Amino acid sequence: MAGEPSSERRARLLRVMAGEKLEALVCRLPENVLLLTGYWPMCGWAYAVLSADGDAACIVPDTEEQEARDELSDARLVTYAYGTKEPVDQLLEIRRALQWTRAHKHWRRIGIEESFETAAPAWNAAESSLQARPSRRMLDEAFGSETLVDVTDVLDAEKAVKTGAEMAKVERASRIACFGMKEFRARVDAGVTGVELASAVESAIMVQGTGFEGARRVRAFAQVATGPLETFQAWRPAEITTTRRLEKGDLALLELAVVADGYWCDRTRAGVAGGASPHQREINEIVRQAQEAAFKAVRPGASGREVDEAARSAIRESGLDNAFVHITGHGLGYRYHEVMPFLAPWSKHTLTEGMIHSVEPGVYVSGFGGIRIEDDVLVTGQGARVLGPFPADLD
Amino acid sequence: MAGEPSSERRARLLRVMAGEKLEALVCRLPENVLLLTGYWPMCGWAYAVLSADGDAACIVPDTEEQEARDELSDARLVTYAYGTKEPVDQLLEIRRALQWTRAHKHWRRIGIEESFETAAPAWNAAESSLQARPSRRMLDEAFGSETLVDVTDVLDAEKAVKTGAEMAKVERASRIACFGMKEFRARVDAGVTGVELASAVESAIMVQGTGFEGARRVRAFAQVATGPLETFQAWRPAEITTTRRLEKGDLALLELAVVADGYWCDRTRAGVAGGASPHQREINEIVRQAQEAAFKAVRPGASGREVDEAARSAIRESGLDNAFVHITGHGLGYRYHEVMPFLAPWSKHTLTEGMIHSVEPGVYVSGFGGIRIEDDVLVTGQGARVLGPFPADLD
Repeated sequence: MAGEPSSERRARLLRVMAGEKLEALVCRLPENVLLLTGYWPMCGWAYAVLSADGDAACIVPDTEEQEARDELSDARLVTYAYGTKEPVDQLLEIRRALQWTRAHKHWRRIGIEESFETAAPAWNAAESSLQARPSRRMLDEAFGSETLVDVTDVLDAEKAVKTGAEMAKVERASRIACFGMKEFRARVDAGVTGVELASAVESAIMVQGTGFEGARRVRAFAQVATGPLETFQAWRPAEITTTRRLEKGDLALLELAVVADGYWCDRTRAGVAGGASPHQREINEIVRQAQEAAFKAVRPGASGREVDEAARSAIRESGLDNAFVHITGHGLGYRYHEVMPFLAPWSKHTLTEGMIHSVEPGVYVSGFGGIRIEDDVLVTGQGARVLGPFPADLD
Repeated sequence: MAGEPSSERRARLLRVMAGEKLEALVCRLPENVLLLTGYWPMCGWAYAVLSADGDAACIVPDTEEQEARDELSDARLVTYAYGTKEPVDQLLEIRRALQWTRAHKHWRRIGIEESFETAAPAWNAAESSLQARPSRRMLDEAFGSETLVDVTDVLDAEKAVKTGAEMAKVERASRIACFGMKEFRARVDAGVTGVELASAVESAIMVQGTGFEGARRVRAFAQVATGPLETFQAWRPAEITTTRRLEKGDLALLELAVVADGYWCDRTRAGVAGGASPHQREINEIVRQAQEAAFKAVRPGASGREVDEAARSAIRESGLDNAFVHITGHGLGYRYHEVMPFLAPWSKHTLTEGMIHSVEPGVYVSGFGGIRIEDDVLVTGQGARVLGPFPADLD
């Protein structure tokens, strides 16, 4: 899969840099190293450098030289001693490498990332490194504080619109997610626990997803709420999966993130132990129709507000609009959740061809539970294209 | 498991604050929120505040109020609107909450964290939030820039020595890891892939570990290298697990992180498909004896250098010291890897009762492969106590 990023992405980045009068970008967030070079860092200690003349370099610890070599395209690979036996000042090594990549250039305006707060992890999600004050001091020393400009927002906006090659990577993640949703459907039954379901989903994805269309690094993060109380609360941004055993007739709600070589998707499906009741089917159908309405509203030029309202009004017609307690969607791909576009009543975003976002209406009714259906779509000239289609019925 | 942190931890933190002349600590890193309040944040948007008069508060998004309420001890719970449907300026909400917790106090010296670069994720490891420039601006506005002091190192040193309650939590994680190592041993065989093994290990840990001794949030991150080439490189800090199928006689090396309610362990075991050869047993025994030698050198007052040398000299006697390419151990518990103590030729650390660290000698021989044995030990007055003992043979 080497050869990324596409010349399209490189050309776009150079245009953005020209617009911001940047002579270089120096990025550390794993998602932006991926954006600039096509390489998803192993542990968060890599830097990507792109200069306005189109010269790109990726600085990585020597311990991940092999992976970087396999995945980088035309960016120069620069390694530094990471130090596993000898003591090494990594930031000093990085500083030297940065100055080397800079060679004899005299950059006066360099874009860096400082306003993230939330970021996608590197491959080693158990301990992903990120830039904090010490890195900033190192950059000050390498380039001079007065040259550094925070362009986090600019890069976020730039990431929101995917190139063809990037769409294919997000779509692959979303297709890999189907292995997990299939496993979920097969396993939802009386007696099984949420933890067992989540674990089976993650396992199916890692085993069937690694190697799928060349994906090398695949991991899933699943949460499964079960029963009326847990699924009623399953709109929350972070959940706990429990050892509660499903009873016949219980809802189970799978919230699923999948990452494949640094590209993320975000899916949700519901299931019922022992077959759905007419009432459960009815609610699921209301949510499915709301999702369908939102799909139909997706087109370049549509506002995030408009698409949200399409889903919301469909649910309103069923008298359940108070039960739809969250927004309709968010951008994704370089992260589990990107910061644009938002599909929400308060959104100021406008959809553009090439954006990828979730469409995830849900209703949560006390005593009944919660049902959400979530898919990721690509905004095309012909409307929404669902990435990795998967049945949305309950059985 | 509410009731943490222990009064011992609280008293120690207040002593540290007195020593640093701090009137308060305001922490955001998930590991330090856990340290101060006993609560492991769900998604990294929680703050812990401890004032020198012993008043503690934990500020969390209202979406995780329930979990915080269940896990916090005597810290006051303060919630803010996280915003799932309405647009919310989270940092503004947090600032208000911080000013409220501060009430009429006039703190002039407040400890914050700025020098981390690496941090443990919150429960939602797929997208863990951390403080960056915007949070710092918010703290500047809430308290005044001149009041803020970076005490990351002080907290790292303080975390390195665990209280009795904390030891029990790390030990629980290490005992949960045994479910995964047992699964690994049972499954290593010709025809199985590294990805299948890693996935089976993670699954066993999530399924058997959730609920074990009250653990609510359990996740494993496993990597399995297989065969001579992959295991030869398996000393690297981040690895890729592949779909390569084990052949009879192949080594498999499991690198395993487990987190249980915010407390981490770090284990490694080797196995051989179809039974080990005499040569493989011999190398494993050399590594096992090196680990044993390091265990024996562990005592309060021993230097990190001394314990490293104990392992290294045992391997040197076998003529394999050039094959032991990394350090002997590192602190852990609040992270997969803490920054002290290091057991290394260059370590300046001295072991203290209550420290927890890994002991992980390994040898990596071209053409043969790599074997590492890793366990976590508690430093006691009677020497090293292995947490979650597990057989270290190859079969």
